[in-house]
Amino acid sequence: MKSVIDVVDLTVGEIDELIKIACDIIENPEKYQDAMKHKKLATLFFEPSTRTRLSFEAAMYELGGSVLSVSSAQSSSAAKGESIADTAKTVSQYADIIAMRHPKDGAALAASTNASIPVINAGDGGHCHPTQTLADLLTVYREKGGFENLCVGICGDLKYGRTVHSLIAALSRYAGIKFVLISPKELSVPEYVTEGIIKKNNIPFTETEFLEEAMPKLDILYMTRIQRERFDSEEEYMRLKDSYILTPDKLSGAKPDLSILHPLPRVNEISVDIDKDPRACYFKQVRYGKYMRMALILKLIDEAEKDGKTTVRGTHIENAVCKNARCVTNCERELEKLFYHTENGECRCSWCDTKID
Amino acid sequence: MKSVIDVVDLTVGEIDELIKIACDIIENPEKYQDAMKHKKLATLFFEPSTRTRLSFEAAMYELGGSVLSVSSAQSSSAAKGESIADTAKTVSQYADIIAMRHPKDGAALAASTNASIPVINAGDGGHCHPTQTLADLLTVYREKGGFENLCVGICGDLKYGRTVHSLIAALSRYAGIKFVLISPKELSVPEYVTEGIIKKNNIPFTETEFLEEAMPKLDILYMTRIQRERFDSEEEYMRLKDSYILTPDKLSGAKPDLSILHPLPRVNEISVDIDKDPRACYFKQVRYGKYMRMALILKLIDEAEKDGKTTVRGTHIENAVCKNARCVTNCERELEKLFYHTENGECRCSWCDTKID
Amino acid sequence: MKSVIDVVDLTVGEIDELIKIACDIIENPEKYQDAMKHKKLATLFFEPSTRTRLSFEAAMYELGGSVLSVSSAQSSSAAKGESIADTAKTVSQYADIIAMRHPKDGAALAASTNASIPVINAGDGGHCHPTQTLADLLTVYREKGGFENLCVGICGDLKYGRTVHSLIAALSRYAGIKFVLISPKELSVPEYVTEGIIKKNNIPFTETEFLEEAMPKLDILYMTRIQRERFDSEEEYMRLKDSYILTPDKLSGAKPDLSILHPLPRVNEISVDIDKDPRACYFKQVRYGKYMRMALILKLIDEAEKDGKTTVRGTHIENAVCKNARCVTNCERELEKLFYHTENGECRCSWCDTKID
Repeated sequence: MKSVIDVVDLTVGEIDELIKIACDIIENPEKYQDAMKHKKLATLFFEPSTRTRLSFEAAMYELGGSVLSVSSAQSSSAAKGESIADTAKTVSQYADIIAMRHPKDGAALAASTNASIPVINAGDGGHCHPTQTLADLLTVYREKGGFENLCVGICGDLKYGRTVHSLIAALSRYAGIKFVLISPKELSVPEYVTEGIIKKNNIPFTETEFLEEAMPKLDILYMTRIQRERFDSEEEYMRLKDSYILTPDKLSGAKPDLSILHPLPRVNEISVDIDKDPRACYFKQVRYGKYMRMALILKLIDEAEKDGKTTVRGTHIENAVCKNARCVTNCERELEKLFYHTENGECRCSWCDTKID
Repeated sequence: MKSVIDVVDLTVGEIDELIKIACDIIENPEKYQDAMKHKKLATLFFEPSTRTRLSFEAAMYELGGSVLSVSSAQSSSAAKGESIADTAKTVSQYADIIAMRHPKDGAALAASTNASIPVINAGDGGHCHPTQTLADLLTVYREKGGFENLCVGICGDLKYGRTVHSLIAALSRYAGIKFVLISPKELSVPEYVTEGIIKKNNIPFTETEFLEEAMPKLDILYMTRIQRERFDSEEEYMRLKDSYILTPDKLSGAKPDLSILHPLPRVNEISVDIDKDPRACYFKQVRYGKYMRMALILKLIDEAEKDGKTTVRGTHIENAVCKNARCVTNCERELEKLFYHTENGECRCSWCDTKID
Repeated sequence: MKSVIDVVDLTVGEIDELIKIACDIIENPEKYQDAMKHKKLATLFFEPSTRTRLSFEAAMYELGGSVLSVSSAQSSSAAKGESIADTAKTVSQYADIIAMRHPKDGAALAASTNASIPVINAGDGGHCHPTQTLADLLTVYREKGGFENLCVGICGDLKYGRTVHSLIAALSRYAGIKFVLISPKELSVPEYVTEGIIKKNNIPFTETEFLEEAMPKLDILYMTRIQRERFDSEEEYMRLKDSYILTPDKLSGAKPDLSILHPLPRVNEISVDIDKDPRACYFKQVRYGKYMRMALILKLIDEAEKDGKTTVRGTHIENAVCKNARCVTNCERELEKLFYHTENGECRCSWCDTKID
């Protein structure tokens, strides 16, 4: 573990270790309150995200370290057209670890291959957001005591929600998991997830349009938002919208030990009346996110000495270019265009994982 | 004292205690330099105000704590339409205390009712700015050794200046105070202050249009700015503007131990030539503001464990809505509309104190 | 040394002392890691510059101090039209030292004459950027063991590049220095530098249009960027542009112990293939910049007690005004317009050093 770019780069063993560290921090905070004394975290947020930035900064402060903060592109050298590579090399002279948020897919990977210090991906466009998934996992672990034999309902926009895909991928590695995928048909989980992840791991799953119908079976309910514009038609939206808003009455059929998660921020998909319900875990989830980031910072800085640089899998292919307009290779100067082949023979961009044909 | 939203919520005893703590900090800073070690202040400034933000952050650092800083709306989740309530609940997972600045009247109260940690109102629109008033009070106390028997001149825009109204309300609780209210007629103190506060407390006061005329009596001169557009007519502005600009010659008739205060920032209402005059206290006032914020942070975090949540006085009234366009109830989702009745039977919004009829 | 506004205000002895301190920090970092405990640096960046701001903040953290950060004008009182003088007086109540970046020429000097704490100029418009020059000097010193008898090549836009002029001025004070000035004719070093600094100090120098031709002699190569629009004509640009882009082949004739410097950020004037070359020093230079800022902070805070205020040389001249549109005197209220005479009888603005005629 030199840098953390995508949660699926982590082995089950590495995730278990991070959870173990996080739990020890929760139980013995004073043991860690000076663990990172004289160390510096640089939070490079080239796109605003208070929640995630403050979570990283709170994590570093609770470890006794300090923080160099960049909270928007306009106040940064990026405004002067500096490359991500040069920013990473420069900040490596100032800090001990970087947490980076950037609008371009693959930006954190581009930074990690140039930085001489560990890089944590705090969100690269619509590509990955591994610390959110790690926060989700720690929440499930703390609420349920483990990952085995859980019935996990995931509700909302399952087509475009990347955090949902990462969560499914991460949970699919544990035994006895069942998924109930709750969404309008036009926003159901894409095939590469159902085929490539869920079925491939022989995970039982059902798909439904109706949250209430699914409720009774669930141990975990992971809520996400559906943006109005994602629906095929206004009629569809009017027909379905209420079924994806969690209200107290929809909980009537739920298990007494259900755990309700949400990556936040929410708009109206969970009524505030639910906040008082002991089954509401989404603000605890925020706290667990902080502890997970503490564990990550500890682990990565601890290993930083040993490990070498992050290397990118893949090779150069004559004339091949990534067609993803938001891919970092389309804005970053002198970044080698690399591609890799998946088991099923697809060719994908090494930076943003977009399929090339 | 769970949270501090409006200075008049504090009893004279509580203010005296804060002044006592602030004075002890001034005399024994080293005693406090690690008092807040491992504690975190979140400065949530959804509206720019360097002076106030840096004052809070300097205060926390001088107590040995650390700071999570949000210095503008655009770099925050608020940009994504998150409710103040959710922001407060989230930041409660990261920090030990919040200092919040927000453009909406009542925003800090809305945050405090949802946060599980103390909230200090660092300015909610044109509604309240209690730490400014507390800084003013500490300055008067340090300069005069107390509040009794002082002749306090307040000059400038006394109609719209909320800090002025708070200062009058706070000082009206001490014995032997006299006010000299200096302003153009169209910008004189509103009736709810003269009738509802000054006369109600049997405080002797005079009103005048001319600063120089008032000068000889004054122990304290509190200067504020008048915005040109506040005048009824351009003629009025031209006739009066110079009389509200403090210049060395205007000080000729003043007492040798006069103390000149100003909330800052100033434009031109106090000539820079006055800065060297020993009677100029407005930069000392900035320093006292820092010490008062240190006292507040200490006191609130100390009491945080004991106290419960902030509760809002008032009840729901069928169909009643607050007509103040800047009231937080007009932008915040699912915030209960509450109202209370004053002694003289007025009905007011519980969040922004606007009168309902 | 009360404040550092322009590198030429520092004597050779003072620069040597700063280098000595910086070297001791590099060799014994732990000796300094709590040297500034309980001290505060205010980084007032009214113009974005992540690199410089983070360098100052990293420097303060590595000295055990804390940081009050203002990273853009829009989030500051400046937005409310506060004068630089009042900002300086206010921040003096909060911090122990200021590092200030401002778009106006002379802004840092205006701040230092009003602050009661030391001010470091982190760039005032196109006027001065002393900590960049000090970083350049430390890099040369560390790479070459001293400044004597070096052949220093400076390449790029030598007409408008202020850091280049400062570097020439600073190096011209050491014995045995030789300059090779590499630029298109229309962007060659201005006369006030060749005549007023280089020749005046009897420094041997040559001027050339061609980097490759100069390469073999050089001990130091200082690269800077040329902006396309600086060229007289598109033809000129097309003819010359490639000759100012450093590529591996251009290094073929270079000394094995050449040191390549660049103030950064770069666009494309140094190919990234050079980064791996041991002669590339520009990222080490970033690190040296941090150490030099640590030395400055230590030195200035240490001397702060002793020294008095910064005073401005020069006198008031009836009706004289500075014609530099970017001069701080053209935006700052009540800032006395002062002028001084140079040895050769020129009259210059005391704030931005622009020649008055």
